[in-house]
Amino acid sequence: MTLETLKTHAVHGGTLRYLKHDSATTGTPMALSVFVPPGEGPFPVLIWLSGLTCTEDNFTTKAGAYASGAEHGVIIVAPDTSPRGEGVADDPAYDLGQGAGFYVDATEAPWAPHFRMETYVVEELIGLIDAEFPTTRARSISGHSMGGHGALTLALRHPHLFRSISAFAPISSPTRCPWGEKAFTAYLGSDRALWDAHDAARLIEKGVGEGCFDDILIDQGDADPFLVEQLKPELLVAAGEAAGQPITLRMQPGYDHSYFFMASFIADHVAFHARRLKG
Amino acid sequence: MTLETLKTHAVHGGTLRYLKHDSATTGTPMALSVFVPPGEGPFPVLIWLSGLTCTEDNFTTKAGAYASGAEHGVIIVAPDTSPRGEGVADDPAYDLGQGAGFYVDATEAPWAPHFRMETYVVEELIGLIDAEFPTTRARSISGHSMGGHGALTLALRHPHLFRSISAFAPISSPTRCPWGEKAFTAYLGSDRALWDAHDAARLIEKGVGEGCFDDILIDQGDADPFLVEQLKPELLVAAGEAAGQPITLRMQPGYDHSYFFMASFIADHVAFHARRLKG
Repeated sequence: MTLETLKTHAVHGGTLRYLKHDSATTGTPMALSVFVPPGEGPFPVLIWLSGLTCTEDNFTTKAGAYASGAEHGVIIVAPDTSPRGEGVADDPAYDLGQGAGFYVDATEAPWAPHFRMETYVVEELIGLIDAEFPTTRARSISGHSMGGHGALTLALRHPHLFRSISAFAPISSPTRCPWGEKAFTAYLGSDRALWDAHDAARLIEKGVGEGCFDDILIDQGDADPFLVEQLKPELLVAAGEAAGQPITLRMQPGYDHSYFFMASFIADHVAFHARRLKG
Repeated sequence: MTLETLKTHAVHGGTLRYLKHDSATTGTPMALSVFVPPGEGPFPVLIWLSGLTCTEDNFTTKAGAYASGAEHGVIIVAPDTSPRGEGVADDPAYDLGQGAGFYVDATEAPWAPHFRMETYVVEELIGLIDAEFPTTRARSISGHSMGGHGALTLALRHPHLFRSISAFAPISSPTRCPWGEKAFTAYLGSDRALWDAHDAARLIEKGVGEGCFDDILIDQGDADPFLVEQLKPELLVAAGEAAGQPITLRMQPGYDHSYFFMASFIADHVAFHARRLKG
């Protein structure tokens, strides 16, 4: 087994494992958690992509997702948000470098050799999960903030790999917000023409993934401090309306950007995916 | 308001606050979290006591209790496990001093002036919650490990204050395990005759709290690494059988000592208390 088990916990009748493996894609060890529900399987898979500063642990301990994973019989996979460790480039800011991989393959120095999170997720991670766990090979994807951007863009760019998409407070259009502009300049270079292929709103506008997803579920707290400057879900909605891509945006009154927000609605998201994973 | 609000989060339709106040009992600032369910109230109260090394934050972020608090309309209060800060005695070990108050009033130096967690919980904290939140004044208590010991002993010693008791993996008889012997020697002194009044199994054996609690719900994982040497739920069960105190001990196969264990069964505990809080 290429996955090393660091810790195992029983939870909600299933089994949660903290794992690491040597990634051929990033050239580093990569950490993740995998929840396997009770029963024999095979089970469909939900990939969860976390936000800025997170490791695999934040979602795992705080989202409260495994009750729903057990109820619906879904494997839930939470990878780390970037390669890490000595010899891996980093930046003192929280929104660049380690913990801030943005789910793209970097083309620019000093990030290019290790920061290849798109290929890591859509090739290596998915292959590893299907090889090592009892999956049906049906999978969906969700995430939060930077990870919501990741869920949207990876699924739109690789729609044959995913049955459904949802997101919590996603960065809807990274080419039009400070977090995204900073990260894409660093990872993809200053030619903005290359950025649109990693911008969820732009992809939807262009019809990428058209006809592949019957709905995209987005939850967004209206008390989220990043809503106006960074997240901009109205750009997603406008793109969906222009291109005919159904998007359900639920503005949740009083909710912020924290895991308390995600814990409040994660059951809806797991159920949304479970319906499509088993159809 | 004597409570200072540090952070507020919407969660499961209710409101979670991180608070601090200057405690007259401990002579220090004390931290806590309070979840208030949606609706007008008044609401009954569940006090949660955490285990060794915890602050108010562990339960708050990891237990997943607030879905059940919202469903049943129960305020959930999670205090810190000890006084903290400069000028407060401490010990380099994880199981003594700050983070390890054991829910007793220390009589011994250097702990006595600040480590008064029994009086803090049963007088100051309860009074503060009833004064500052819309409570029915009906309350119950639960906790984990050291906090399970706290829930059991505080409720048995002050049964007029609590409608019901439950615990996860409690230290069942601190006079007969290394954690308890170390802490009680430090906080209460070397005269073991004084210890029994803070030992749940001994209290039940002696009939303390007799007739006050129709059942006590205990969940214990059978893969808990502390089960045999520290927790010893068989001593609680034997005491209950000898004294006629009903105790429901559920041995949960494969579960360990972590918050994943608590998150798996917290809904059962909130429901157990809600039935008694509203009766």
